Amino acid sequence: MSLLVVGSLAIDTIETPQDRRENVLGGSATHFAHAACFFSPVQLVGVVGEDWPEEYTRFFENRNIDMTGMEVQKGGKTFRWTGKYLENMDDRETLETQLNVLGDFVPKLPEMFRRAQFVFLANGSTKTQLKVLEQTQGASMVVADTMNLWIHHERPELMELLKQIDGLILNDSETKLLTGESNAYVAAKKIMEFGPKFVVVKKGANGAMFVSEYEIYLLPAFPILNVIDPTGAGDSFAGGMMGYIASQGEVNGEIIKRALAYGTIVASFQIEGFGLDKLYEITREDIEKRLEQFRKMINL
Amino acid sequence: MSLLVVGSLAIDTIETPQDRRENVLGGSATHFAHAACFFSPVQLVGVVGEDWPEEYTRFFENRNIDMTGMEVQKGGKTFRWTGKYLENMDDRETLETQLNVLGDFVPKLPEMFRRAQFVFLANGSTKTQLKVLEQTQGASMVVADTMNLWIHHERPELMELLKQIDGLILNDSETKLLTGESNAYVAAKKIMEFGPKFVVVKKGANGAMFVSEYEIYLLPAFPILNVIDPTGAGDSFAGGMMGYIASQGEVNGEIIKRALAYGTIVASFQIEGFGLDKLYEITREDIEKRLEQFRKMINL
Repeated sequence: MSLLVVGSLAIDTIETPQDRRENVLGGSATHFAHAACFFSPVQLVGVVGEDWPEEYTRFFENRNIDMTGMEVQKGGKTFRWTGKYLENMDDRETLETQLNVLGDFVPKLPEMFRRAQFVFLANGSTKTQLKVLEQTQGASMVVADTMNLWIHHERPELMELLKQIDGLILNDSETKLLTGESNAYVAAKKIMEFGPKFVVVKKGANGAMFVSEYEIYLLPAFPILNVIDPTGAGDSFAGGMMGYIASQGEVNGEIIKRALAYGTIVASFQIEGFGLDKLYEITREDIEKRLEQFRKMINL
Repeated sequence: MSLLVVGSLAIDTIETPQDRRENVLGGSATHFAHAACFFSPVQLVGVVGEDWPEEYTRFFENRNIDMTGMEVQKGGKTFRWTGKYLENMDDRETLETQLNVLGDFVPKLPEMFRRAQFVFLANGSTKTQLKVLEQTQGASMVVADTMNLWIHHERPELMELLKQIDGLILNDSETKLLTGESNAYVAAKKIMEFGPKFVVVKKGANGAMFVSEYEIYLLPAFPILNVIDPTGAGDSFAGGMMGYIASQGEVNGEIIKRALAYGTIVASFQIEGFGLDKLYEITREDIEKRLEQFRKMINL
């Protein structure tokens, strides 16, 4: 069934202890869509500037990602992010953010996209996320990501958003920032009181936790010996998860659990290359093989 | 089969954001033994002073823990530790350590204990741990715990110990300190090059990872809403794990995986009360019930 993502399209510069890459295709919607497309067709809405390389659009289209909703802003420049990973590859510094066309982005959903059954509001301004929800109708599941910036500066809007979505996905430090609780399980339960029926707490190399009223699922991260670039791992996780759910059409506990596992596996590939390099190399079969290994590592 | 633990017996003072308790029965061997005894009889070797309350010894004996190896040092005082947990209940400060009789402890194993099949060298001086191995014979599995203090100050002795043991169990910050590697999986592989056939990395609220040459097992922590006192959680984890292995007699992948799960479950009870309070309340049946819940949270 149809899966819509609205979020950022970016040109990144990434520094790691071993390497530095410029002009890497990035952004929350980009990573999400490239992970989700292993499981389901994806509709993408985002904005770029005139500097956006034509070939980048083709990368998406080759992956069955519908780019009809990509707006090219005349005279504008694409959102750019420069980040540097510290030795542990988990902590990072943002060296530069140029919002550019993303600054006053007002998403306009093509007619075809408005009835998407599954909607993912990738990381981006909460105001933008709310504007998407004004245009969608009858979605069976709406899930949003957020980050510290919006928790700090758009808290009233975020509280409004939480009333309108089915699930929130965020990392453990953001969970704490939003609720004041450092126990992720307690924090997830608090967030559910704000509206969402479920919360997914992402913990990087420590895995993820799914909490709903009657269910808890726990997933370790798949262990990777050589982490090349963690950028977008959280978006890939969400993409794998939502892509699998959309491919199943219905939602139940077993499907959610498997969806979380697919998210874990796709994210584990994502971090093995710069930007999308590794996701371009692998096939669905590679994902299935690694999922089988993962099962052996965790099933009791 | 027989399980021997050598480690500290302590009287703790524990401060948490909510409470403060004095004269709490603690120590690495204490927590280990009280967790292991749900699965297997335990032989304990440790030292206390004349201030050691008689009733504490009976707590152990009531749990099928053989205290023949407890030495009471005349004129000495028992090891005392005072610690304070920060708001997140994960980080802690040591406010005071009085080594007392533990300072020059030379473990002497009763004849009966020397042929223990399973040996756990609980956290304590590496020199003391080495002295235990001089006295044991024919153990089928020797596992040791360690901590930053010994990694800093007894590194040569620790390197010698690593050549003589089957498994090392330590937390993630210690793993990094020992190897310089922040990726726990990479670090575990490095430690195996020093000697042990397997490494267990404990990650507190983020679970644990078991690594051997051909196996990796990943365990999230069991989610607890109300953490009362995390003291001894790592020792309980090791106790549940080793106790279960000792109860099985043989060692294979499935048994190790289940042992890690039992360790996880016992540790999750441990942190729900001060000191050993919760472990005194529960039965093996409670452990089995929670293990069943845990399975549902993680099995794919």
